[in-house]
Amino acid sequence: MKMGVLGSGMVAQGLSARLAELGHEIVIGTRDSDKLKGWQSSNQRVLIGSFAETAAHGEMIFNATNGAASLNALTMAGEENLADKILVDVSNTLDHSNGFPPSLTVFGKDSLAEQIQRAFPLAKVVKTLNTVTARVMTHPLEVANGDHHVFISANDVDAKSQVTDILRSFGWLHIFDLGDLSTARGTEAYLLLWVRLYGAMNTGMLNVKIMK
Amino acid sequence: MKMGVLGSGMVAQGLSARLAELGHEIVIGTRDSDKLKGWQSSNQRVLIGSFAETAAHGEMIFNATNGAASLNALTMAGEENLADKILVDVSNTLDHSNGFPPSLTVFGKDSLAEQIQRAFPLAKVVKTLNTVTARVMTHPLEVANGDHHVFISANDVDAKSQVTDILRSFGWLHIFDLGDLSTARGTEAYLLLWVRLYGAMNTGMLNVKIMK
Repeated sequence: MKMGVLGSGMVAQGLSARLAELGHEIVIGTRDSDKLKGWQSSNQRVLIGSFAETAAHGEMIFNATNGAASLNALTMAGEENLADKILVDVSNTLDHSNGFPPSLTVFGKDSLAEQIQRAFPLAKVVKTLNTVTARVMTHPLEVANGDHHVFISANDVDAKSQVTDILRSFGWLHIFDLGDLSTARGTEAYLLLWVRLYGAMNTGMLNVKIMK
Repeated sequence: MKMGVLGSGMVAQGLSARLAELGHEIVIGTRDSDKLKGWQSSNQRVLIGSFAETAAHGEMIFNATNGAASLNALTMAGEENLADKILVDVSNTLDHSNGFPPSLTVFGKDSLAEQIQRAFPLAKVVKTLNTVTARVMTHPLEVANGDHHVFISANDVDAKSQVTDILRSFGWLHIFDLGDLSTARGTEAYLLLWVRLYGAMNTGMLNVKIMK
């Protein structure tokens, strides 16, 4: 599938490399292509584009920009390039402006995922993967042989199903369907626990398993 | 041990009954003792007191009041009755004023646990158990045979150790020491995910296991 990955950080790089490895045609979108030239030299299957070129290319688009910059980046990507497409939001609104521990810029009665959906009502926003570090997103078997959960939230059932297939292709064994997009409030808030688990365990190679 | 449990809801009742069953001398503290008369008739080992009587009785005190009412309840309990004692805060600040899903009244850069610690600096505040429903708090083996985690946050290492012993007496097998009291920001924020897990699973008999 043709896919666009918006962002130039570790999450965008990791997603792009893994999706390309799985045979998808990937464009990674950035404000500043120079930032990615070095990385691309060892990931030549991934093309570099502007936000708009990346979104225009993708049948499925990943938002892997910094949460605080996501709405702006998506605006630059262009509403017309997002319309009727699946927009997978993997970002978080961690606010590091006061150092550690970070807070969140969106919280409680709203979520970044819902903000994106309201700003781009024709996109089919799916929230997932934001509860794990970049490496675990794309290589879940490296934590406890995959015995842990990723969450997925979306209003569009078919979009959720297509993204679930992508998650399985990454190796995810346990995909927890939380419900509609408002459930992203829960997974985004969880980041405040995640950063403390990271602090206590001194590694980001961790996740939660839901037990009953 | 002499213990006081502040609150009259399911959490306070469950903690009081379980602690009494384990041989502790329990007073449960409420604004309105009539509310607990029926419950007490089948829990006669538990005495009913005012907030102040309950705190005065306890060598260890549990805050199981509604989070929004906790600071007021603890003020009624009396600073002098809390000084130099372990104050186990198991409450959450869920705000149901706009229906489901709830938000939180304290979030991100602060936590209820820290608010309590600041208001009662001589108390040794320990945050724990707030990430599970009342029944799981005191009977953790009823979920996945105990194969899941409870978190504990506190500034006082000895207080944390004593509360860890109480948790073990309830049956907790996996007690995750998150660090100082500010880590309660993480476990309190997690409630926004918990309510969505509850919604999706249609039961509160659930918890998370930390995997690495």
